[in-house]
Amino acid sequence: MDIKNKSITSRDDDFAQWYTDVCKKAELMDYSNVKGFIIYRPYGYAIWEQIQHYLDNEFKKTGHENIYMPLVISESLFQKEKDHIEGFAPECLIATIGGGQELQDRLIIRPTSECVFTEHYSHIIKSYRDLPKLYNQWCSVVRWEKTTRPFLRGSEFLWQEGHTMHATEHEARQETLRMLEIYDKCGKDLLAIPFVKGRKTEKEKFAGALETYSIEALMHDGKALQSGTSHYFGDGFAKAFGVQYLDKDGKIKTPYQTSWGVSTRLIGAIIMVHGDDNGLVLPPFVAPIQVVIVPIKMNEHGVLSKCQEIKETLEKSGIRVKLDSSDKTPGWKFSEYEMKGVPLRIEIGPKDLNQNSCMIAKRNDGKKDRYSLENIAETCSSVLKTIHNEMYNAALHNLLSNIKEAHSYEEVKTIVNNGGYCKMMWCGSEDCENKIKEDTNATARCIPFDQVAFDDTCPVCGKKAKYVVYFAKAY
Amino acid sequence: MDIKNKSITSRDDDFAQWYTDVCKKAELMDYSNVKGFIIYRPYGYAIWEQIQHYLDNEFKKTGHENIYMPLVISESLFQKEKDHIEGFAPECLIATIGGGQELQDRLIIRPTSECVFTEHYSHIIKSYRDLPKLYNQWCSVVRWEKTTRPFLRGSEFLWQEGHTMHATEHEARQETLRMLEIYDKCGKDLLAIPFVKGRKTEKEKFAGALETYSIEALMHDGKALQSGTSHYFGDGFAKAFGVQYLDKDGKIKTPYQTSWGVSTRLIGAIIMVHGDDNGLVLPPFVAPIQVVIVPIKMNEHGVLSKCQEIKETLEKSGIRVKLDSSDKTPGWKFSEYEMKGVPLRIEIGPKDLNQNSCMIAKRNDGKKDRYSLENIAETCSSVLKTIHNEMYNAALHNLLSNIKEAHSYEEVKTIVNNGGYCKMMWCGSEDCENKIKEDTNATARCIPFDQVAFDDTCPVCGKKAKYVVYFAKAY
Repeated sequence: MDIKNKSITSRDDDFAQWYTDVCKKAELMDYSNVKGFIIYRPYGYAIWEQIQHYLDNEFKKTGHENIYMPLVISESLFQKEKDHIEGFAPECLIATIGGGQELQDRLIIRPTSECVFTEHYSHIIKSYRDLPKLYNQWCSVVRWEKTTRPFLRGSEFLWQEGHTMHATEHEARQETLRMLEIYDKCGKDLLAIPFVKGRKTEKEKFAGALETYSIEALMHDGKALQSGTSHYFGDGFAKAFGVQYLDKDGKIKTPYQTSWGVSTRLIGAIIMVHGDDNGLVLPPFVAPIQVVIVPIKMNEHGVLSKCQEIKETLEKSGIRVKLDSSDKTPGWKFSEYEMKGVPLRIEIGPKDLNQNSCMIAKRNDGKKDRYSLENIAETCSSVLKTIHNEMYNAALHNLLSNIKEAHSYEEVKTIVNNGGYCKMMWCGSEDCENKIKEDTNATARCIPFDQVAFDDTCPVCGKKAKYVVYFAKAY
Repeated sequence: MDIKNKSITSRDDDFAQWYTDVCKKAELMDYSNVKGFIIYRPYGYAIWEQIQHYLDNEFKKTGHENIYMPLVISESLFQKEKDHIEGFAPECLIATIGGGQELQDRLIIRPTSECVFTEHYSHIIKSYRDLPKLYNQWCSVVRWEKTTRPFLRGSEFLWQEGHTMHATEHEARQETLRMLEIYDKCGKDLLAIPFVKGRKTEKEKFAGALETYSIEALMHDGKALQSGTSHYFGDGFAKAFGVQYLDKDGKIKTPYQTSWGVSTRLIGAIIMVHGDDNGLVLPPFVAPIQVVIVPIKMNEHGVLSKCQEIKETLEKSGIRVKLDSSDKTPGWKFSEYEMKGVPLRIEIGPKDLNQNSCMIAKRNDGKKDRYSLENIAETCSSVLKTIHNEMYNAALHNLLSNIKEAHSYEEVKTIVNNGGYCKMMWCGSEDCENKIKEDTNATARCIPFDQVAFDDTCPVCGKKAKYVVYFAKAY
């Protein structure tokens, strides 16, 4: 009801406002009366359910089990790993009153669950037979943020957090990379988003991790978005929490740990990678509604019953379909489902019926074609696949054409200021990272897996270069 | 690894200890270091996932949509409905510090979400076209409890909460009863648990509700367990939060509201209805592992490969199956999966191979029979159905034979003290409820839907009886 055609800001006029407009008008979210805590409305939550469904299946296929850990972490437990508490302390929400009484050990609302997982592991891991432990949790976490933005940065967000324990360093490192690959595959298969993959710099890694890997996406405005992370912890947490096991060789050993997560931030990525001036554009496999059927001259004989028949045919072949038989005008409906990013629209009226055909409109490029109603399910499946591929390829083209090599510090500044990734050689020192951040507000996104040196020196300090690194402004 | 045969207390020696033993030894849960907050271990969580899967499907079939609301509710918002805040205030966990600063409006960690849903509805319901709103949320809630017990009463538990808004009182009342029916059906189809259904007394109803309906189960020790509730709110919350809509007739009206929920308490019900001295007994359709295959003389030629083949056959027909090829002894494995309540065990060794058959043991009654390996999937499916029916019928028999009519106050006391439901006529006064509670600790479980009067007077006060009511001691 509250959708109006062209009622949103243009994407290139004011990207931030366009983003907020899409979030609201596509009914993905609403604000609650507590700042930074959003309401995930049914249409937004349904996108998250699709992501959950895909990933949960991948996690289980690779032997992971779901678990649910307490929402609260006692302050004393949280303090066991020093780097970790230092990283999270400033953004904790803390409960101090329970059942009318002041709490002796105050309770932190979980910002992440390394501490409670590791504490639990200290109780249940005794022998090499208990390893590996491959656990995952779907939940919400709370991080008290000053400036918030729907899906991108909020005081509460939905996520999954995997926490695993392994007998050897090698196996734990493999797990860290294996899960990064699953996230990357989710981008390719489900979200139609290509990622840059790599390792975080020391400055940018997770509090308490030895190494952090990430997938980084490129938004339409040229900013990067960290879209998922996978951490290797070594045995730091395990030692802090006293996790030990008796190995085959009769020796007491400490296991090696990982954690990895993606969040509802991915919804933000979908919006900002694919959206356009008519609103959301959803990749078909993550779309809660893949096909919408809009009857034209609905009251004329046979139109509505044919639409119903098509709906059932599509449902039977597993397509998520909606028939809108409300009394709104077709034009109104077109705008509404464009705003909501439904990938494929079927229009069908009395003339189409006579020809046993219908019009199919693709949301991603607006192209409209006539198709026979024979094999309509196969046609839709095939067009949905085409849309997915087109969207992925467009995003890939945008990503690749916005990775630019810098050979001087001037070039570094120009590239990051123009938007996109600056690919540069780097000496590895935090001083150079800090200088770039001060001058441009860009940060090191990652040290990509592809390491083909193209210069000898770091363009910032002129010293010997060690790594290829990507810098960009980021959300 | 930590399962030992006969390592649990006998059910009839000490039911409370038996319950705790099963929870721990079947690896359903563990304690965290914060009192009352348990860890839902993978095996326990997987049972919850089955319940979620069943109910989520039923909710969606009946037009409900999932949503996610903030975890925190500002104290000022929570105070808008008076009965509600009075009911919940004593058990609230309250956050007072965020990002290092004291919060001006303190935040209650949600104990239930009527307030945030109704506040949201006040923003999105404008017209009769926006009704009904049929929303559901899967989440955890926090209620600060003094005495806690795994799954039955905890400071944090997992649940679903449906919150709906309707144009008419009639429709809202129908919704309240429709959802109660879905819970009842879940008992019948999935949990193999029969319920007593009815309306709560004024004293026992939910804080802020006009009417509360519940499903009540009977545990092995004769205590009742409230297993799910459905509330009709009238327009109380809607008025307190200013939810109004423009109706077809051009008039501004207030909608009518319901909420309904079940929680991980259902896991407690499963344990206490079906469990025995060897541990958990899971109803087949809710069991994370429905069939376990235990190879006998695993290293002899062909045994393991045949087991693998059977596993794949069963998986293909949709059965959840585990092959345990670990180096533990078969006897050890038998005990372990008995403790974990796996409904059906296949034993297969070299002799069985020769006969192209296997032994199938039923967890619910311990009976073992030989079956051909031809059509093993059909055989398993059929035995699983039989087990479900046997378990449901046993529970139904136990329920029905423990509902006893009382005609005098002496009988009331004797019946509730012996365990089971006391079916009695009641005058409807809270004084009589209070007297029974003082004398016996039993409470009114519900005013059942079946109302066939069998006495004229209330056995407590001797005044004219209005209702048939069930009293029982309860968890």
